[in-house]
Amino acid sequence: MTTSPINRTVFVVSDSTGITAETFSHSVLSQFQEFEFQAVRVPFIDTIEKAQDVTVRINRCFEETGEKPLVFSTLVDPKMARTIGSANCIFMDLFGSFVRHIERALGTKADRSVGRSHSNVMSKQYSNRIEAINFSLAHDDGQLINGLEQADVILVGVSRCGKTPTSLYLAMQYGVKAANYPLIPDDFERGALPLSLVPYRKKLFGLSIHPDRLAEVRHERRPNSTYASLKQCINEVAEAERLMRLENIPWLSTTTRSIEEISTKILDEVGLNKRIY
Amino acid sequence: MTTSPINRTVFVVSDSTGITAETFSHSVLSQFQEFEFQAVRVPFIDTIEKAQDVTVRINRCFEETGEKPLVFSTLVDPKMARTIGSANCIFMDLFGSFVRHIERALGTKADRSVGRSHSNVMSKQYSNRIEAINFSLAHDDGQLINGLEQADVILVGVSRCGKTPTSLYLAMQYGVKAANYPLIPDDFERGALPLSLVPYRKKLFGLSIHPDRLAEVRHERRPNSTYASLKQCINEVAEAERLMRLENIPWLSTTTRSIEEISTKILDEVGLNKRIY
Repeated sequence: MTTSPINRTVFVVSDSTGITAETFSHSVLSQFQEFEFQAVRVPFIDTIEKAQDVTVRINRCFEETGEKPLVFSTLVDPKMARTIGSANCIFMDLFGSFVRHIERALGTKADRSVGRSHSNVMSKQYSNRIEAINFSLAHDDGQLINGLEQADVILVGVSRCGKTPTSLYLAMQYGVKAANYPLIPDDFERGALPLSLVPYRKKLFGLSIHPDRLAEVRHERRPNSTYASLKQCINEVAEAERLMRLENIPWLSTTTRSIEEISTKILDEVGLNKRIY
Repeated sequence: MTTSPINRTVFVVSDSTGITAETFSHSVLSQFQEFEFQAVRVPFIDTIEKAQDVTVRINRCFEETGEKPLVFSTLVDPKMARTIGSANCIFMDLFGSFVRHIERALGTKADRSVGRSHSNVMSKQYSNRIEAINFSLAHDDGQLINGLEQADVILVGVSRCGKTPTSLYLAMQYGVKAANYPLIPDDFERGALPLSLVPYRKKLFGLSIHPDRLAEVRHERRPNSTYASLKQCINEVAEAERLMRLENIPWLSTTTRSIEEISTKILDEVGLNKRIY
């Protein structure tokens, strides 16, 4: 017997983008599957007046639903956080809780400057990240051989196994220069890596996928083609995995993994300790 | 007088990717600018044995540096969290702290299932996100007119003002189908939007940039070209802003904003309330 989920409203309040608070709220709330949470994003709350407006919205939500909304806040200013916390809600003060703990442990005071986590766009680190995004775009799907020597990693695998979103995520989230290059039937016939990749063998990381899933994904793109047929998918996947084993390329299956999981596994396995954004 | 920053090691421990914990740790630690934090990512800690190994690493770090490392943990399993917390460290138990609070408030027990926040790759939501990434890639820089009617938003602006990374971020992080289309000198001569965009005027959102910054960015790509000259940049930016005002297109400046900030502002202004990933 399945019961319908219980609805709850979640406010995500931040003086900046709210991305940290929202990422965190998803993580925590994924542990309460009997509930269905409706998230309301309230970013850029950087004055007491705006905080008071949010308090009014939270209270109105409580009156309308009869249930206290959950509120995840990364407000840095303690006064603004208290304003929100005074509403009729279940208040999670992410900053307050941990900043005070760290202040005590480090024997110092936090700067309490608003909107800092995504600032610093003039930094070297930030421009490296934009460069990584441009690099990964330019080196998507084997489009460009030039510059592959600058890649941090080159993903290889059959068409539609997940190389493109993974490369872009690695660039976007970690500032990793991730190229990707397809393994195609021509390579399997020759039984060897594409020639352009041979000089960079140490940078290669393979992605594979279950043939059933691959056929599904390919059918969406080109319905009822030979390309999408299960037979073709079984064959290509087997050949690609054989080639990766033969060439000693580390690889993993993308079938049941999100791009976050695939990307983190890759960084972990190739030993890249890159900053997250 | 500037003093050199104090170094501290930070361990980011998770049973899954660690992305939530790391995003959160950056946010909080950006408030302590007198310190320089070295982050060590320890993802996929999903057994007590692995947790014990991490504890050994943390203790070794304490012995070597004489300073307690900071530890941000999103371990769901309380026993594993306790194992880590028993090390010589400043322990931030992100899950434990808030999960218990929510459990009490909702009158229920959390599922405490490991690695859930990035799972569910078979869901409709997840495939929408991958579709959005593919859409944004295919519709980068006006490459494809076909399908623009499916866009959630179409970013416009002069070359190198930040359209591409923003479109990809919107797709990756929010599952938004974000196309982008350049405004070029031809358009300014005609004094009108590119014809292909006219049917989608309501989906347009403009990005602009300070001409000095634009010249810098363009110089990196094509040093000493007319394209990168300050004169050309001043002119293009003025014309683009004039056109956006004329056509009543909402726009913002990317000059001092990160792609996170630009993307969140856009969602906020166009009223798209999309799920974050």
